[in-house]
Amino acid sequence: MKIDVKKDLYETEKTLAQINRETFKGLQLPVVNMIGSPGAGKTTLLEKTLEHFKAQGKRVGVIEGDVQTSIDSDRLSVFGMPIGLINTNGGCHLSSEDVSRAAKALPLDTLDLLIIENVGNLVCPAAFDLGEQMKIAVLSTPEGDEKPLKYPALFKNAGLVVISKCELADMCRFDVRRAKDNIRAVNPDARIIELSALDGTNMDEYLSFMMNLAE
Amino acid sequence: MKIDVKKDLYETEKTLAQINRETFKGLQLPVVNMIGSPGAGKTTLLEKTLEHFKAQGKRVGVIEGDVQTSIDSDRLSVFGMPIGLINTNGGCHLSSEDVSRAAKALPLDTLDLLIIENVGNLVCPAAFDLGEQMKIAVLSTPEGDEKPLKYPALFKNAGLVVISKCELADMCRFDVRRAKDNIRAVNPDARIIELSALDGTNMDEYLSFMMNLAE
Repeated sequence: MKIDVKKDLYETEKTLAQINRETFKGLQLPVVNMIGSPGAGKTTLLEKTLEHFKAQGKRVGVIEGDVQTSIDSDRLSVFGMPIGLINTNGGCHLSSEDVSRAAKALPLDTLDLLIIENVGNLVCPAAFDLGEQMKIAVLSTPEGDEKPLKYPALFKNAGLVVISKCELADMCRFDVRRAKDNIRAVNPDARIIELSALDGTNMDEYLSFMMNLAE
Repeated sequence: MKIDVKKDLYETEKTLAQINRETFKGLQLPVVNMIGSPGAGKTTLLEKTLEHFKAQGKRVGVIEGDVQTSIDSDRLSVFGMPIGLINTNGGCHLSSEDVSRAAKALPLDTLDLLIIENVGNLVCPAAFDLGEQMKIAVLSTPEGDEKPLKYPALFKNAGLVVISKCELADMCRFDVRRAKDNIRAVNPDARIIELSALDGTNMDEYLSFMMNLAE
């Protein structure tokens, strides 16, 4: 007997993702899954998001996925929003089971939005549906404008692509127009926002997008 | 009957890695496995390495691992050194089998050094021995100086840690001393070279290191 282990694991994952999706849907809770390389600026975007939601009297919860340490969840804890930390201990992506476990410990019914910050990795997290409503891809300019072609799986399935650290684009010879062309080559419908959390460029556009999700 | 699939896969991988290692040892061919995030600067380091080896009359082969595209191997092909491209088609790391297959197509007995450029990923490639003599970790300054703590598996097992894109350190609020402390916290014996391929800082030290491997 030959067991297709990979297929079996994927099927289990898909079932768990579907259960998560129904739970979130039942609560009318929008959920996004934020994915990008280590250091793409995901946690900085979350700091800005939590700060903005707090100022607007909205509640956003975070499921923070990290291989090791509580460095990122510590950074986010200052905003007084509920945060669930998952250390994968070497694991390269969050699973639906991780999300289910973390979500159970969060006061979901008090939230306007739930953001999952996945493990810093452009490859593996793209392959796993966690039950989210939308994937957000974060590509930082120092990574290079060809990355959407080299790592298409994530960009293909993202509802929003954030091009972050735009203040470094010139120094990193990152061509924003070429990057957008490359994103659109794999995903013609993606919404794309190029921004700088450092100098504030287009942060209003990003924050409006997130706020609209929570309406 | 319960099959420990993960253990079984790891055992097969370990055997293949050992076969690769013996092949390389039999040819007295030094082999390094270069690992880092997407956009950390691995391919740029290889361009500088191939250029330098060529000028010194030495031959270096490259096994280029990428999820998709031949963008990186095209960049390296201008130096006239033998390059084997492996597209993993979604796979998040190179396997020993990938390396074995690519190596068979390269003129190994004419080489002074073989460099494996792994898939851009700080997590998964760290878990797989490919039969190399040494892992080289590449951490770019825009990724942040805390990354050795967040992704310890790679840094723990690296013989050399390259801190790349040092010209961006100040703009990215990357503290080189803190980064070195964090690397040494997980790997007290790592050789660390901070460099800039753009402005040439410490490139001589890096190139001497690589040349010494090939002696």
